[in-house]
Amino acid sequence: MTLLLKGNIIYTAVPEKFESYPRSYILVEDGKVKSVSKEIPEGYIEEQVEDLGEALIIPGFVDIHVHAPQWENAGIGYSKELIPWLNEYTFPLEGNFKDIEFAKEKYKVFVEDLRKVGTTRACVMASCHKEATQVLMDLFKKSGLGAYVGKVNMDRNTSSDLREETEVSVRETEELILTHIEQIKEENNQPEHKPLVNYIITPRFVPCTTAELMTKLGKLAAQYDLPVQSHLDENRSEVAWVRELHPERESFTEVYAHYGLLRQGKTIMAHCIYNTPEEVELLKKYDVMVAHCAQSNFNLASGIMPLRNYLNEGIKVGLGSDVGAGHTLDMRAHIVATVMASKMHWVSHPEDLPLSISEAYYLATKGGGQFFGKVGSFEEGYEFDALVVEDTYLRKDRELSLEERLEKFIYTGRKEQIKRCYVRGKSINMDDL
Amino acid sequence: MTLLLKGNIIYTAVPEKFESYPRSYILVEDGKVKSVSKEIPEGYIEEQVEDLGEALIIPGFVDIHVHAPQWENAGIGYSKELIPWLNEYTFPLEGNFKDIEFAKEKYKVFVEDLRKVGTTRACVMASCHKEATQVLMDLFKKSGLGAYVGKVNMDRNTSSDLREETEVSVRETEELILTHIEQIKEENNQPEHKPLVNYIITPRFVPCTTAELMTKLGKLAAQYDLPVQSHLDENRSEVAWVRELHPERESFTEVYAHYGLLRQGKTIMAHCIYNTPEEVELLKKYDVMVAHCAQSNFNLASGIMPLRNYLNEGIKVGLGSDVGAGHTLDMRAHIVATVMASKMHWVSHPEDLPLSISEAYYLATKGGGQFFGKVGSFEEGYEFDALVVEDTYLRKDRELSLEERLEKFIYTGRKEQIKRCYVRGKSINMDDL
Repeated sequence: MTLLLKGNIIYTAVPEKFESYPRSYILVEDGKVKSVSKEIPEGYIEEQVEDLGEALIIPGFVDIHVHAPQWENAGIGYSKELIPWLNEYTFPLEGNFKDIEFAKEKYKVFVEDLRKVGTTRACVMASCHKEATQVLMDLFKKSGLGAYVGKVNMDRNTSSDLREETEVSVRETEELILTHIEQIKEENNQPEHKPLVNYIITPRFVPCTTAELMTKLGKLAAQYDLPVQSHLDENRSEVAWVRELHPERESFTEVYAHYGLLRQGKTIMAHCIYNTPEEVELLKKYDVMVAHCAQSNFNLASGIMPLRNYLNEGIKVGLGSDVGAGHTLDMRAHIVATVMASKMHWVSHPEDLPLSISEAYYLATKGGGQFFGKVGSFEEGYEFDALVVEDTYLRKDRELSLEERLEKFIYTGRKEQIKRCYVRGKSINMDDL
Repeated sequence: MTLLLKGNIIYTAVPEKFESYPRSYILVEDGKVKSVSKEIPEGYIEEQVEDLGEALIIPGFVDIHVHAPQWENAGIGYSKELIPWLNEYTFPLEGNFKDIEFAKEKYKVFVEDLRKVGTTRACVMASCHKEATQVLMDLFKKSGLGAYVGKVNMDRNTSSDLREETEVSVRETEELILTHIEQIKEENNQPEHKPLVNYIITPRFVPCTTAELMTKLGKLAAQYDLPVQSHLDENRSEVAWVRELHPERESFTEVYAHYGLLRQGKTIMAHCIYNTPEEVELLKKYDVMVAHCAQSNFNLASGIMPLRNYLNEGIKVGLGSDVGAGHTLDMRAHIVATVMASKMHWVSHPEDLPLSISEAYYLATKGGGQFFGKVGSFEEGYEFDALVVEDTYLRKDRELSLEERLEKFIYTGRKEQIKRCYVRGKSINMDDL
């Protein structure tokens, strides 16, 4: 299937600058970008073009760290730091997801709201409930979005409501994996296409998972060749706690490595604020992608991740909303928070330059998109995940550049400006699920 | 005139806590709060009550530092620091306000947009153009909002377009003041009421005002007993520049003091990030109100104001959107930015506790409201500036407290939830101006 759109095309192939194509053409074949060009591609005529007028055509946003069951907690409880916040706000809300009707209602709203803000791919943590997680995966499949979804595993240091028996936690995880494999076999007539929705192994974080559970999850991940997502070095008290729990290991990061949970090039670790230089080396060694959650880190007073340092070290970074510790699903706000955090870091570390808007935009598109394959850019061969954005920043005094229009959409725009959303070249139906 | 409303009343009389009155009564007489009570006030019957159901009734927001002509620049140019940003973005846009038709169109949008986000009082900087400033004052009078509005004065270090002759700058300022005094005489049949819109002396900041101009503005302020607003200690390069320009003075703050521009209890200084301890003493001596503009300080990488220290010192603080360096007029976002900035400051200064949501809310209502008199609270005798806010955070698992509902509105709400707005007891017509 071929798609030929005309509009104001803008994206980041590299962090340092925007690629801007005013009133240009993007050709998409079989869901993948074939070309972006100022002239109509050879072999095509204007009648074949869908002209989107003055609209911006930009890559869809990628949210590589978000907690689906916590959406209702967004915006409350931010007077707490991580551990008390988990105990007083997060765990009680997540406990409700054992009720499958509750889960259906809440997850439906979550996926719909995610779609409305132009997030086309997401790495999602569910609660520890198998049935509810299945509901969430099914909703994502129905939504047309791309996602990695994982049932959270927890067998220690959580509410009695949520604490799982180790064996049950592992068995239910494997059941979800096997159900998913069965479904793929049934649905997939194009084996060259990876499914849009996939399972990801999701130990909550070291304090909530015993050595036995981590061992078994590491084995499951290897057996089914699955990616892994978890939390790392978010908060000083959390780091100290992990040290107490695992005096036998060198570091928080090394605990995950030891249990086979840093799968080469297939692991996302959220936060990474307090990593030691040795831990940074481990991130590099295992090609871990860091989920930078600047808004969440502001809200829970966690600290500022040394983002510029990670970028200099060549560590892969994407952005995470981390809802409910982040208060919005809208990745535009997380781009802003990323730039702000980098500026505040720069004030006290003048050697680490703040991020430019193109750098932060890159992280929210191609940066996180790497975890999904060729996603988040309009370079040739990239899957066509895109948003069509209309704006009305008509100025009498001068014309805004495409870069400025995009910057203004990011800082001051509204989600209602997103008029259309594509995932893998397919226009997504935005009706309620 | 009497107003008796019933609803979920919440406000801050002191920073430390919210005063919460679920399904209670607020009695307003002649524009001022008479009482807030759980039972119907004595002498009244239910038939006289306007019941607002489950809506929140909260004080209107106070924005004590905002640049009206820069609203169109919100969201662009934030890769610059203060001085290059002024030269490349701010001054060119402000130059257009010499065109009165341009000014009418843009200021109309500005005042309408300010009203839509629930800001009921504002301290506003215009451009240096007399006629455009008059337009802005007239629009505020028409809007029903309360405001201090000042024509900016600049006679050095700005674009040739904007640089004024010193004498002209002073003369035009005085003409605006005299016109305003005449208008008040004509309009005001209730001399006990101060007008809602008033003039404020507005030297842009020391680098843009010669000693002669500052001397004459100080005299004007004294002659007509007017308040003063300006910028202070925002950015390191700016502070260094002021030192170069005024080696004869002890500090940036002392320049203003020397020229009579720190009027006792009648001065707002925006930013105050890099004040020395001696300058903090001057702020205290002259009872200067500090306009904390956390979002702007993030955007222009200015730094973090030592807010907790100022509060401990008893310095009055209000919040400013500082649009266009801030990217939204919505004071809810500035409450959030204030809390975030205080948390990031706390991470490196553990002795300075972060602000709670009630403290930040206080600054955005009663804190800044003090500059207008008894404004920003629902205590007896306060002018009734209020918003009626409807929300839909119905949860199945538990009921949210009024404090949580307000917190959620601040973090995740939309301006469309503001269903009604009162200023001095009068319901404001929200139609286009």
